[in-house]
Amino acid sequence: MPTIAYQGEPGAFSEQAARAFFGKKSKIRPKRNFKDVFNFVSKSGAHYGIIPIENSLFGSVHENYDLLLRHKLNIVGEVKLRIQLHLMAMPGVAVRNIRAIYSHPQALGQCELFLRKLNSVEVVAHDDTAGSAKMVSEHKRKDAAAIASAQAARVYGLRILRRNVESNHRNYTRFLVLSKKKAPASAHMKTSIVFAVRNIPGALFKALGSFALREINLLKIESRPLVGKPWQYLFYLDIEGSERDRHTTQALKHLKELSTLVRVLGSYPIGNTVHT
Amino acid sequence: MPTIAYQGEPGAFSEQAARAFFGKKSKIRPKRNFKDVFNFVSKSGAHYGIIPIENSLFGSVHENYDLLLRHKLNIVGEVKLRIQLHLMAMPGVAVRNIRAIYSHPQALGQCELFLRKLNSVEVVAHDDTAGSAKMVSEHKRKDAAAIASAQAARVYGLRILRRNVESNHRNYTRFLVLSKKKAPASAHMKTSIVFAVRNIPGALFKALGSFALREINLLKIESRPLVGKPWQYLFYLDIEGSERDRHTTQALKHLKELSTLVRVLGSYPIGNTVHT
Repeated sequence: MPTIAYQGEPGAFSEQAARAFFGKKSKIRPKRNFKDVFNFVSKSGAHYGIIPIENSLFGSVHENYDLLLRHKLNIVGEVKLRIQLHLMAMPGVAVRNIRAIYSHPQALGQCELFLRKLNSVEVVAHDDTAGSAKMVSEHKRKDAAAIASAQAARVYGLRILRRNVESNHRNYTRFLVLSKKKAPASAHMKTSIVFAVRNIPGALFKALGSFALREINLLKIESRPLVGKPWQYLFYLDIEGSERDRHTTQALKHLKELSTLVRVLGSYPIGNTVHT
Repeated sequence: MPTIAYQGEPGAFSEQAARAFFGKKSKIRPKRNFKDVFNFVSKSGAHYGIIPIENSLFGSVHENYDLLLRHKLNIVGEVKLRIQLHLMAMPGVAVRNIRAIYSHPQALGQCELFLRKLNSVEVVAHDDTAGSAKMVSEHKRKDAAAIASAQAARVYGLRILRRNVESNHRNYTRFLVLSKKKAPASAHMKTSIVFAVRNIPGALFKALGSFALREINLLKIESRPLVGKPWQYLFYLDIEGSERDRHTTQALKHLKELSTLVRVLGSYPIGNTVHT
């Protein structure tokens, strides 16, 4: 049975994404950072990794795009997870008892409106959401709460005091599943590509022509200036279909003629949205 | 003399961006959130606002793109600010005296590697970077430090104990200057556009053709799925030149034929990078 590596503590959103993709009983392993997840998968032929790649409020996780470029792994799947944050504490603790609230900095940022309404409560940044639930539970804190997922409340035996304390409920994170092997062929696939073109007028137009002329549908595009190389851009592109499709193979050949860099990051089944 | 509204406390990065753009002696006004900045500028014919729009590590600030779409303001300028974060405390306080470190959640996230190396120090989230410097200073805390800008240290009379505690030094934020009036014509302008096309194969290719066929250079492109409208996308586009250029006027007409929505957010001089 394969092991799935993710960044964070048990109960983290990445873990939920892993279980949504691989099933509830899958064997998972927490890692300290994204780089460790990539290294774990790179060193083994049998294991997987799962990483967040974009959030509907905060945009792309550029660090993980960089790691995808640096490692030779394949994207073999995706999961879109609705992010729901809850205020949780030890059984018996009421909101009025709380003097400190712990969570990951980004999660705290997402709950700004809720946190502002509280008086004389200290808001404390912690390594991750699940880790703060773990800390409140392990120290049996009667004066503290954590903001984390419902799964973290279950894992660490905490009670949810306020549900959905995030300011914006249109909060989704897309996770990618990584492997050393490519995904097998299946129906409804998409393909993620990174490419670079010289920034001359029409360069991107011509590059996109590779796909448009073959009626290949575009699902995502994002440009990113190359740091230290003015006027050079990286493009992240998601297209419909598999790199094994004959017209996509042709399109990629066409794209290579026009680009200074082309990397296919993987072809994989289009994922579903999971509500936790 | 116009007033420039920004989100945050005195000493915030947005304030630095405002002073870099309007000069050191410009009249500025802090606001609690981005919406208040937009409302302030919308209600007045003479004032300006400044907002962050994208960061080199964290991608686009989608909230501000949404506000740009909802309000009828014009982008009249941009500033790219190198974000540098420093650890600061009251004069006489040494690193070994510090028991708590305060800053904005995102800034704390950017200093994760530095913060992990510290032992028995509590990391506390605060509304903004400058606000935490203000708090440490006002309460004359001898056991606490803030992570904020050099400007915040100056404003609140704190000493910098460790410079550049951010993990990744390639940290730039691009700010936009907003006004009810359009920017006057000048050399080296760029134009920001939002448009939507139905996601049929080749739709974006055709839309970009409006610019490519007229040799108009593309500076940024980003797609964003429209929440609740599957298969519909918004595109944020920056192009070289002014909407008043004859070929750009034609390109925009051409784009409107192909799109369900086109909004020119403004034509403005291409900004410089400011190191603080």
